[in-house]
Amino acid sequence: MPRYKLTISYDGTSYGGWQIQPNTPTIQASIEAALKTCLGSDVKVIGSGRTDQGVHAHAQIAHFDAPKPLEEKKVQYSLNGILPKCIRIHTLELVSDDFHARFSAKRKIYTYHLFTSPVRPPFLRLTSYHVRGRFDKELFMQASKRFIGTHDFTSFTNESTIKHPRKNAIRTIYRLDIIEDTDGLMIEIEGNGFLYKMVRNIVGTLLDIAKGKISIENLDLIFTGKDRKLAGKSASPQGLFLKKVIYSS
Amino acid sequence: MPRYKLTISYDGTSYGGWQIQPNTPTIQASIEAALKTCLGSDVKVIGSGRTDQGVHAHAQIAHFDAPKPLEEKKVQYSLNGILPKCIRIHTLELVSDDFHARFSAKRKIYTYHLFTSPVRPPFLRLTSYHVRGRFDKELFMQASKRFIGTHDFTSFTNESTIKHPRKNAIRTIYRLDIIEDTDGLMIEIEGNGFLYKMVRNIVGTLLDIAKGKISIENLDLIFTGKDRKLAGKSASPQGLFLKKVIYSS
Repeated sequence: MPRYKLTISYDGTSYGGWQIQPNTPTIQASIEAALKTCLGSDVKVIGSGRTDQGVHAHAQIAHFDAPKPLEEKKVQYSLNGILPKCIRIHTLELVSDDFHARFSAKRKIYTYHLFTSPVRPPFLRLTSYHVRGRFDKELFMQASKRFIGTHDFTSFTNESTIKHPRKNAIRTIYRLDIIEDTDGLMIEIEGNGFLYKMVRNIVGTLLDIAKGKISIENLDLIFTGKDRKLAGKSASPQGLFLKKVIYSS
Repeated sequence: MPRYKLTISYDGTSYGGWQIQPNTPTIQASIEAALKTCLGSDVKVIGSGRTDQGVHAHAQIAHFDAPKPLEEKKVQYSLNGILPKCIRIHTLELVSDDFHARFSAKRKIYTYHLFTSPVRPPFLRLTSYHVRGRFDKELFMQASKRFIGTHDFTSFTNESTIKHPRKNAIRTIYRLDIIEDTDGLMIEIEGNGFLYKMVRNIVGTLLDIAKGKISIENLDLIFTGKDRKLAGKSASPQGLFLKKVIYSS
């Protein structure tokens, strides 16, 4: 069975996240349903990873095995005709059988958008987090450097180690860039892998530092304590975008 | 009674336009309701002009007369707390009694956003028109020049001359700029006044020319024919933004 790779963007606002779950519309379920309509048979779509309820993607990657060779442009066009406009298929391409959207992924890039001026335009309400009150940008930027490199991120994941025992929570952040504009900041973070809610917990902790709720001096203790309760709260999902999945290292 | 000027942005997607009408949420009705909650009495809000169902605004201007002097920042803050996030009050300022949001307006600037690449990202679905198939950009740009200057725009308005008899439909377009980016065009149009649906009908006619449905050579006849049926169809509302209202000439 030929394997195909999909590049998918979505506005996650109205979805219960990427992964199929009961009684909630999800991105994965919508794409599987559209593929069933197109191809006439059940197809399992494997994503590079989950995104949570309300999180967006510029370029989520997924693969599926088709019952027969496909006319790629035609199927892509049909899928976009069937899918709601919140979900778009940007490319559909034949890949080798050993390509796996999740296991072949080498790096991921996420962005998080903060709006920091007092009145946020309505057009950004579903795609940014509105920071109100105290916000020390310099402190935010200074603290962000602590996350770069290879660390144990146990304190920054909501993943239950009881339900999902893992050997470790060690991940490498290659870069964490902060791009400023007139009304806010965009955080761009590239790593070899991200634990459940890790980006939102990193951003939430940086926000709590910038608001004076957590002292920047405590960051080392938060890392070494390996306890989710030590870090800041999760930043809300609507500011987060999966920007890119990188496969060749 | 002191008069106040409001600068308002809105995402028009879920509204029946600016103006109050029965059985439909409108921007004007939402702001009047929020002011009533804030001020404890009925207040009439006068906009610089209507915008249609689905049309957006970066900076619509309105005025109202308050029953007593207001703490401007406090009322602005309260209004934004009451209003849905689709509508934002950017400024609330005391103006002189002879300021009138509609009659004092000297010029208006609108933008219209066209997306011309094959797959439109979901984040632009509510704020752009997706042009599919044939689109001759050079022809679009060439034809757009014909609209600049002072003309009778009868063929480009849906305003019924029977219901609303007017002395004339002569308006001046000071500039019609086309700004290109990688995936489309933004049309920015500045004029001394716009008739009902005039911007959408101009853009729709330019689109029909760019698609080969109307010959550019017919533009003069469309103007001189003074008949709405001669021009192209209305471009859809979601691409249109009221960008600015200019009061000092």
